[in-house]
Amino acid sequence: VTPDSRTRLVLLAGDPISHTRGYAEYAAAFAAAELNVAYLPAHVPAGRLADWLDGLRLTRNLAGVVCTIPHKQEAALLARCDDTARRAGAANLLRPNAEGGWDGTMLDGLGFLAACDGAGMTIAGARVQLLGAGGAGRAVAMALASRAPAALAIHDPNEARAASLASAVAREFPEVTVGAALEASDLLVNCSPVGTGDDWRLPLPAELIPAGGAVHDIVNRADTPLLVAARARGSSTLHGDAMMRAQIPLLIRFLFGT
Amino acid sequence: VTPDSRTRLVLLAGDPISHTRGYAEYAAAFAAAELNVAYLPAHVPAGRLADWLDGLRLTRNLAGVVCTIPHKQEAALLARCDDTARRAGAANLLRPNAEGGWDGTMLDGLGFLAACDGAGMTIAGARVQLLGAGGAGRAVAMALASRAPAALAIHDPNEARAASLASAVAREFPEVTVGAALEASDLLVNCSPVGTGDDWRLPLPAELIPAGGAVHDIVNRADTPLLVAARARGSSTLHGDAMMRAQIPLLIRFLFGT
Repeated sequence: VTPDSRTRLVLLAGDPISHTRGYAEYAAAFAAAELNVAYLPAHVPAGRLADWLDGLRLTRNLAGVVCTIPHKQEAALLARCDDTARRAGAANLLRPNAEGGWDGTMLDGLGFLAACDGAGMTIAGARVQLLGAGGAGRAVAMALASRAPAALAIHDPNEARAASLASAVAREFPEVTVGAALEASDLLVNCSPVGTGDDWRLPLPAELIPAGGAVHDIVNRADTPLLVAARARGSSTLHGDAMMRAQIPLLIRFLFGT
Repeated sequence: VTPDSRTRLVLLAGDPISHTRGYAEYAAAFAAAELNVAYLPAHVPAGRLADWLDGLRLTRNLAGVVCTIPHKQEAALLARCDDTARRAGAANLLRPNAEGGWDGTMLDGLGFLAACDGAGMTIAGARVQLLGAGGAGRAVAMALASRAPAALAIHDPNEARAASLASAVAREFPEVTVGAALEASDLLVNCSPVGTGDDWRLPLPAELIPAGGAVHDIVNRADTPLLVAARARGSSTLHGDAMMRAQIPLLIRFLFGT
C-alpha cells in the first residue's frame, strides 16, 4: 500500500529496532479495517524517548507510537496511563491526547493472554515460572496473576527488580502465591532477551524448562535457543508471533476507536 | 512495498500537507534504486519546524526530511546549507550530519530547470514573469537568472518580499535585468499558491499570462485556474509534476550518495 497525503503514522520506537517484526501483519490489518495508516520503525536511543516525543508530538497526522524495549517504562512515566499501564508500570502504546500530552496503555498483557488461550495453554491452577521483570515481564506477570495460577515465580538477573515485581503482583493479587522458588512447574514464560543475541547475563535457564509442560517465549521468533531446548524436552512451545498478532485489533481500537 | 525493521524514513514536512503529491513516484524510485526507504507525509505546524526536528533528529533510521510550504526558509536557517540553499535562502531537503545537526540543500531550482528543458521551454533570451517570492520562488528566480533571460520581473502580494528577492538576484547575477515591470513576456512562472485554494490575496493574474507563450505553474496539478486560463489564451503549459519528478534522483543522490 503506497502512502499518500492523507496517511496517518504509527511509529514503533525501539533500541535496537532491527529485531522487530509485524510490519506486514499491521499493514494487512490496517488495510482490512480501511484505515490509511503506515506502521514504521523508529530507532530511538535508550533514554531519549521523552525528548524524541517532544518533537514528534507536533506531527498532526501522527496516530500513535508503539514502544518496545527499552522504552516501555519511560513511556509510562510520561503518559496519562490507563489501569493496564499503571499496573504494569509500563506502556507499549501512546496516543496524542487533547491536552497536548499522551494517553498510554499496555497491550502486552492482554495480547499474551489471548495468545495463551488460542494455543490452549492453561494458566489457572498452573505453576508458572516467569523469566524477565522488565516492561513486558511486568505486564505479563499481572496478566498471569489475573488468571489465578497455583503459584508464580519471577526470575531476573536483577534480583531487586524481580523482588519488586513480585511485591507489586502480590499487592494487586493477594490471593496468588508469588515469589517463592518452584521445585517443578507447568509453564515457563520468557519475557527476557534470552537468546535474542542482545546483552543478557543470565545463561540459558534450561533447569526452568518444564519437561512435558509448556514454554511461551514472547520473543517474536520460533527458533530461540530456549524454544529449541524446550522442544527437545518434549515441551509444547509458543512464541511471540501470536501475542503480537493478538495486539493488533487492540491497537486499532485504542488509536482509531473502531 | 511493506516496510520492515530495516526501513529508513524520509518525511515530507508541510502545513497543510493534504495537497502534497508524489508518494507513488518516490516509492517507485526507491524500489528501482533498491533502497529500503519509506516516504511519508508529516503535518508539521507553521513555525514549529525547528522544535519538531529537535526530537526527530534522534531517530537513527531517519534518512532525511523534505520541507515544503511553509518550512523551507526556516529549514535554511537551521541547516548547514550548500550554495544552492544559501543562494535561495531556502532549503527543501535536510539530512542528518555527523555533527548532530542538518545539512541542507535546495532542489527546487535544479528540478525546475530540468522540467523546463524536458518540455522545451526556453529561458535564455526570454522575458520572464515570476509570481511568488517565497521559498520555492526564490530558488526558481535564481535558477531562471542562471540561464540568462532577457528580463525577469518578480511579483508577490508582499511587495517588500518581491523587491528583496529582486535585489538578491541582481547581486548574484548582475548581468540579468531584474525587477522592472514587463510590458509583454514569453514565460510566466507561478511559484505562488494561486489557485490551490489556500489563503492568497492576489487575484488570478490573468494580465500576466503571455498569450501564445508559456506558463509553468510549479503547483503539482494540471487544473489550476491559472493553467486553465493560460490554455484558453493559447499558451503552452507545464505544471509541477515534471519538476517534482526531476527532483527524485537528486534527492536520492543527496541522501544516499547513489
